[in-house]
Amino acid sequence: MSAQESNTVATTEQQQEVAELATQVEDIVLGPDGNPLSKKALKKLEKEREKEQKKLEREAREAAERAAREASEVDCAKENYGKAPINMSQVQSGTKWTEIKDLSTELAGQTVHVQARVQGSRPTGNKMCFLVLREGSATAQGLLVVDNETISKQMVKFANGVSSESLVSLVAKVVIPSEPVKSCTVGDVELHVSRLFVISEVSVTLPFTIDSASRSDLERELDPTLNRVLLFTRLNNRVVDLRTTANNAIFKLQAAVSQLFREYLTNEKFTEIHTPKIINAASEGGANVFRVDYFKRNAYLAQSPQLFKQMCIAADFGKVYEIAPVFRAENSQTHRHLTEYVGLDLECAFREHYHEVMDMIGDMFIYIFNNLEKRWAVELATVRKQYPSEPIQVGDKPLKLEFKDAVALLRKHGEKIGDFDDFNTDLEKKLGGIVREEYGTDFYMVDKFPLSIRPFYTMPDPENPQYSNSYDFFLRGEEIMSGAQRIHDAGMLKERISACGVPIDDLAEYIKAFEYGCPPHAGGGVGLERVVMFYLGLTDIRYSSLFPRDPTRLEP
Amino acid sequence: MSAQESNTVATTEQQQEVAELATQVEDIVLGPDGNPLSKKALKKLEKEREKEQKKLEREAREAAERAAREASEVDCAKENYGKAPINMSQVQSGTKWTEIKDLSTELAGQTVHVQARVQGSRPTGNKMCFLVLREGSATAQGLLVVDNETISKQMVKFANGVSSESLVSLVAKVVIPSEPVKSCTVGDVELHVSRLFVISEVSVTLPFTIDSASRSDLERELDPTLNRVLLFTRLNNRVVDLRTTANNAIFKLQAAVSQLFREYLTNEKFTEIHTPKIINAASEGGANVFRVDYFKRNAYLAQSPQLFKQMCIAADFGKVYEIAPVFRAENSQTHRHLTEYVGLDLECAFREHYHEVMDMIGDMFIYIFNNLEKRWAVELATVRKQYPSEPIQVGDKPLKLEFKDAVALLRKHGEKIGDFDDFNTDLEKKLGGIVREEYGTDFYMVDKFPLSIRPFYTMPDPENPQYSNSYDFFLRGEEIMSGAQRIHDAGMLKERISACGVPIDDLAEYIKAFEYGCPPHAGGGVGLERVVMFYLGLTDIRYSSLFPRDPTRLEP
Repeated sequence: MSAQESNTVATTEQQQEVAELATQVEDIVLGPDGNPLSKKALKKLEKEREKEQKKLEREAREAAERAAREASEVDCAKENYGKAPINMSQVQSGTKWTEIKDLSTELAGQTVHVQARVQGSRPTGNKMCFLVLREGSATAQGLLVVDNETISKQMVKFANGVSSESLVSLVAKVVIPSEPVKSCTVGDVELHVSRLFVISEVSVTLPFTIDSASRSDLERELDPTLNRVLLFTRLNNRVVDLRTTANNAIFKLQAAVSQLFREYLTNEKFTEIHTPKIINAASEGGANVFRVDYFKRNAYLAQSPQLFKQMCIAADFGKVYEIAPVFRAENSQTHRHLTEYVGLDLECAFREHYHEVMDMIGDMFIYIFNNLEKRWAVELATVRKQYPSEPIQVGDKPLKLEFKDAVALLRKHGEKIGDFDDFNTDLEKKLGGIVREEYGTDFYMVDKFPLSIRPFYTMPDPENPQYSNSYDFFLRGEEIMSGAQRIHDAGMLKERISACGVPIDDLAEYIKAFEYGCPPHAGGGVGLERVVMFYLGLTDIRYSSLFPRDPTRLEP
Repeated sequence: MSAQESNTVATTEQQQEVAELATQVEDIVLGPDGNPLSKKALKKLEKEREKEQKKLEREAREAAERAAREASEVDCAKENYGKAPINMSQVQSGTKWTEIKDLSTELAGQTVHVQARVQGSRPTGNKMCFLVLREGSATAQGLLVVDNETISKQMVKFANGVSSESLVSLVAKVVIPSEPVKSCTVGDVELHVSRLFVISEVSVTLPFTIDSASRSDLERELDPTLNRVLLFTRLNNRVVDLRTTANNAIFKLQAAVSQLFREYLTNEKFTEIHTPKIINAASEGGANVFRVDYFKRNAYLAQSPQLFKQMCIAADFGKVYEIAPVFRAENSQTHRHLTEYVGLDLECAFREHYHEVMDMIGDMFIYIFNNLEKRWAVELATVRKQYPSEPIQVGDKPLKLEFKDAVALLRKHGEKIGDFDDFNTDLEKKLGGIVREEYGTDFYMVDKFPLSIRPFYTMPDPENPQYSNSYDFFLRGEEIMSGAQRIHDAGMLKERISACGVPIDDLAEYIKAFEYGCPPHAGGGVGLERVVMFYLGLTDIRYSSLFPRDPTRLEP
């Protein structure tokens, strides 16, 4: 995506970023007093530059001569280092490889084989070189010292020259250092390298270092000279950005949320389903649907598995869930909208009352949150180091409010809202603050939304038809799930479709499902990236999407 | 989809179906000797028909009179049956509900509350009625006998009239019958119904009965008068079709394959990822890609997560998998192609040799197959009852053949195939037969495919550049997975992209990932529906897709 394209619908943060970038390319030559230089001063400056240039050229010549001299010297270590040929699976040696995270004092004195990235190197004179070696989230110190037997001057120089983020394969002795290595996650041992081969070389300039992409706001406040890597820059170079330990942990946690969602529902006897994403009509009635060329016909991308998961209920599947992409052609650039996201969808037949399902979903979220804290504590701590947040406050059961009570709460705190108005983002957040204050929880459900602001398939409230049997779930004051009892009666469904002005012909197959008999049922749809974002207190949904898609971003 | 549309690219089976349907609408009146009737005989026939018609009218009149008489009679049971109001969650009674599968002699004498479909009803005189009640895959017999206290003649009549597939809520006593009920899955008890309410009525004609959709080929061979429900008809009425116990079990098994895939890979420390399905270019270089309107630009649907899962490897995720829809705009109507299917994709960094990954994937499949037989034995038995198949033959480790050895095997058995020709479906099947014969296995891997028939990102064989480090996995002689070592070196990748004639600009972001350093890696992509289809020996992939999509089918 070009910078120009992105600006057309740029968010405030993006506009800021562009402005910051612009100041960096300023081109007028200023003197130390901040004013443009005089002609004379400019001429002087030019002369100085010429001198500097000549000096650089002389130094380069000398360096080349020195290198040629060194190359002709006998290199005792020349078999022990270099650039390895491209791995085309030439060898299967049976070598036992050690992972950096597994290095410990127990291995002291042993020789290990390691593959890692060189995060950085630091020479000490020309006889010694320190390397920071990284594998996954673990780092360890590597050390090479010239001994004129295994390790030559040339080998140390080679080690020093390995470009940052290149992958190396090495043989080393595990040694307990005189004092712990504070700068690495493995501090009680270091690696004395005896063989070092580059297996994947970085030959281009990195967009930013992993170090600078890993800093928290606090670190930058304490040392304002440190670079900030902006979200826009991160996303444009996502592969490098994703290498930070915080990002690695964010996506482990994203996977954990799905895993816990499945664990809970499998235990409750749900069946996982896969419904089509290419559909014949924009059947959910919205305008926000992507059109697809389908063998000279029009097709559309499903905005949710809603109609299909209900058809599975009519097919007697009883309890179903699906984890799959969901597509929304919404041209809005906000901190919490994506055009493609991962939907955690579920639908469940019930006997008597939709609260059977709603309460189960509430329990499911409590299960997810509790298990994240218990079983993914390391990953949570890693993310919170770069992006500080408190664990959410939540009891054994989620708080349940009715919509009209939520409206009353907002009014009590001075907000203007009509009886049947939907919450906008501001009101949602405001409500979140009030609920936290009054009930001490970050997770709650709002029940009985007005019928007029819900989709056609929503079951009206039997006591007051201006309300409906529908609910939203909120985390830290923002919506993470929307759900409802659905209409399972074909006649009532047709009435509601007409009342909502949705073209009924596009829904023929869906309506048929209910004409063949269908049990009462309820369900909901969760946005995976939203759960991760709000749970971790991240400020933009793009942080919790691997390769985010929005109206201006289709790459990488 | 209209029949006409489907015919334009109809498969052989569909053409057969259309022919069969055509013979059913034959209109010439034939005599008992099989020849057309004479004019006189036709007249006689007409008279008989008129007489018959009059008789029917008389009977209807009498029935209406009888109904009116009965309606005026006092109905002692009128509170005990009827059509329930639409469930809008009016009541939360706390009633304990019993599932039909849980009915047993232990409950004999107790009163239970049940919700079920009426699969069929059978009156005995006008004082008694038998119901077949179905819930999920379980069926039980219900019985109503007029006692002029709880159950009236009117109530029995109502029970008899409940349309097939309607959902009812009932109260009944669990009774041990004088002899076991053979026609139901629950045979040792039956339900003596005392209250019966229809909660979802089927008011339209069913396209076919669940009974006829549940028959095996063998049952129809034994009794040729039984209807056959054709695949085409099934798919057009998928919601009803999916209610059969075999279909219910097929999709439980489909979910099981995913569950086992995840279990194995989670255990191997893989991370689940979600990569975008909307992409900026037809970047895998094929023509078989769907175009999407994306905010006045062109976008495309991903043909696989290939490029993105590799980018995750370059981002140091190490081992990743994804379960997600995959889109192929291939205009071919075969028994094993869909335009949208579920991809089980994985990618894994390795240290030395791609066989580390290939062997792990082989072990994974053995784990999936063994656990299916152990933990989903009931579902397998259910499917095999309607669609008979033998469990697959497979050892502890999958057989591994090299491509050139597979070619030699085929030639030995009289097939003509060039050294570097790809297998077509016929040759695949032929090879499957030979391998089963010679090695006694239904599951095997073929390694070292010719480079020229594999995608640009495939790593060439280091010993012979006409071959490559790539593999396919086969089940019952058909391909279920394709995989390879990928090129992780940016320079080599660019060369191969040029050599394959793929537009390099579309791949800029992908190539960048390797310029920033990437470990050697290998992986593969599995088609979920294919695994289920071949494992169960089904004859068409549409049987193992919930709502299949092909060039002519976008509905339901």
